[in-house]
Amino acid sequence: MTTTRPYPAFEDFVPGEITTFGAYEVTREEVIDFASQFDPQPFHLDEEAGRASMLGGLAASGWHSCAILMRMMFDGFMNGSTSIGSPGIDEVRWLKPVFPGDVLSVRREILDARPSASKPDRGVVRFRFQLMNQKGEVVMEQTNPIFFARRQSAGA
Amino acid sequence: MTTTRPYPAFEDFVPGEITTFGAYEVTREEVIDFASQFDPQPFHLDEEAGRASMLGGLAASGWHSCAILMRMMFDGFMNGSTSIGSPGIDEVRWLKPVFPGDVLSVRREILDARPSASKPDRGVVRFRFQLMNQKGEVVMEQTNPIFFARRQSAGA
Repeated sequence: MTTTRPYPAFEDFVPGEITTFGAYEVTREEVIDFASQFDPQPFHLDEEAGRASMLGGLAASGWHSCAILMRMMFDGFMNGSTSIGSPGIDEVRWLKPVFPGDVLSVRREILDARPSASKPDRGVVRFRFQLMNQKGEVVMEQTNPIFFARRQSAGA
Repeated sequence: MTTTRPYPAFEDFVPGEITTFGAYEVTREEVIDFASQFDPQPFHLDEEAGRASMLGGLAASGWHSCAILMRMMFDGFMNGSTSIGSPGIDEVRWLKPVFPGDVLSVRREILDARPSASKPDRGVVRFRFQLMNQKGEVVMEQTNPIFFARRQSAGA
């Protein structure tokens, strides 16, 4: 479970720290709802098309997995944090299909944490996230920098 | 508008080709719905919190922009194509906020297209996508490899 304190700020993210958190059950309804709206490829909508595909069964859109991870990050440590936003994602790897009924957890590693040179009230924390299923398989990996305000502004 | 033929297969993706397509109007309701489900940070839910943030107003989650791009890709050229799936995303850059009322279009560049060495029935096409708003500003960029089956299998 997460060891992050409530209301984390930039200072609370310690490079090298590894935490694991969350238990998100993926439902069939949610898989089909997301795919219908954003990624209606047959293997994300239909059991038979899923079985005939590389995925081996009806499986979630990779973008749905990203959205689920975002929700788990929010619930796990970003809710109430000093997060300011993110400039983007360095890499996403969809390694295994995510199936309805899977229960996902997050392994979060803090790669580095650097104060901003130009804006002394904030810093950027670079995370590596692994989304894991109930079998302990890593289904998705991504590297993701996020800006957090510092607990005390260092002044301008 | 897209110049892609119906039912595109691997052979139809020509490196260097640039196409522009789509007109997706982002609604306030959709921004709040997506954020409520997947990314409930205050600046994605509330006008005032958005104005107080780096975004300058209520703005879509970056993951919502990714999902919208996926839908525009589907409608623009993947529907009915021989797409098999994607191993991941090489890079995502969220460059400008996406606001309710924005009308988004896609600029697609084909970076390269390589037949698979191990699986002769398919190849991987690497795309660079730019999501643009109605002012012509690039709001998001990403680089994305996608597997497509070849029109005629080269045999095993």
